[in-house]
Amino acid sequence: MTPIDFYFDFSSPYGYLASLRIDALAAAHGASVTWRPFLLGAVFRITGQSPLTEQPMRGDYARRDFARSARLMGAPFTLPARFPVATQAAARAFYWLAERDAIAAKRLARALYHAYFAEGRDISPAETVVAIAKDQGIDAAALTAALGDPAVKQRLKAETEAAIQRGVFGSPFVFVGDEPFWGADRLDQVARWLTTGGW
Amino acid sequence: MTPIDFYFDFSSPYGYLASLRIDALAAAHGASVTWRPFLLGAVFRITGQSPLTEQPMRGDYARRDFARSARLMGAPFTLPARFPVATQAAARAFYWLAERDAIAAKRLARALYHAYFAEGRDISPAETVVAIAKDQGIDAAALTAALGDPAVKQRLKAETEAAIQRGVFGSPFVFVGDEPFWGADRLDQVARWLTTGGW
Repeated sequence: MTPIDFYFDFSSPYGYLASLRIDALAAAHGASVTWRPFLLGAVFRITGQSPLTEQPMRGDYARRDFARSARLMGAPFTLPARFPVATQAAARAFYWLAERDAIAAKRLARALYHAYFAEGRDISPAETVVAIAKDQGIDAAALTAALGDPAVKQRLKAETEAAIQRGVFGSPFVFVGDEPFWGADRLDQVARWLTTGGW
Repeated sequence: MTPIDFYFDFSSPYGYLASLRIDALAAAHGASVTWRPFLLGAVFRITGQSPLTEQPMRGDYARRDFARSARLMGAPFTLPARFPVATQAAARAFYWLAERDAIAAKRLARALYHAYFAEGRDISPAETVVAIAKDQGIDAAALTAALGDPAVKQRLKAETEAAIQRGVFGSPFVFVGDEPFWGADRLDQVARWLTTGGW
């Protein structure tokens, strides 16, 4: 079975859209996906890029394309009033939970993305991440403690560094085995790669 | 009939790939396409971007993705030894010819793209552009004169400025009416937009 890795930042609109498709797409090929949130800001320091919405000319197009791409998928979408936001708390919560329950961690990731991009709720504060997790039955006190745990912080740092080492420079970024695909608009190619083994 | 405008730079691999599809795609919807070469370098001065292949991390991916995208389309592709190159001569030749024969201008554009991205031939020298045009029965002396004509130079400058005014920040860039689509990987959406009138 070809391993699939799904890299994303919780503040990435295209990451959100990809998150709605990637597992079903993989499952249709009998494959499963490892979700790997990382910090896009750390990547931008290397590539010299910045959030699309802050770029001359590209910003207006990006705002239109986020919404248009979501409509095409029938996905709820709003560009949050605060965008982009820091996603350390969200990503740390994910990794802490993933060590305990991989399924619950994906469920939490989906809830965080939904809160941010469907409801426009700022998910940067640790308290908000904990509140969303608590709604899913996750131990709020344990998660709050984890978010301040140096080991959990280190885990996210290591994951981000590993992503960069692997060549991840945007969100979403998918590997099918060693084959890299950048962007939500490459998921059809990901599906084809899974079907054909490459071209 | 919805007008379709196809903006591209002759040094853009994704522009080349889109050029192979755009007219057939439009024709399938009874539409025709106005081709509009422009100078991506002028846009980069505004956006602060640079050629993909020169960007940290993104360069390696771009090289792989150019070739992979071409293979998926069954299109011949090589990344030319000189890349990117100046495309003033190519674009000026196009506009000069388009005023005389729109069909011949598209045919020349296809030949220029083919020479550069299928054969790896440097199309930046005016002499090369003229030689390629001559192979198509175009008057070499008249074209050589045109490439030094201030009015022809001004035409390309005006087209590039108009593209920027319209929001074109990359290549390829397609408008279906007023709806903008950036990237060769948006052509399926272009086709859908033509079918549905939008979503």
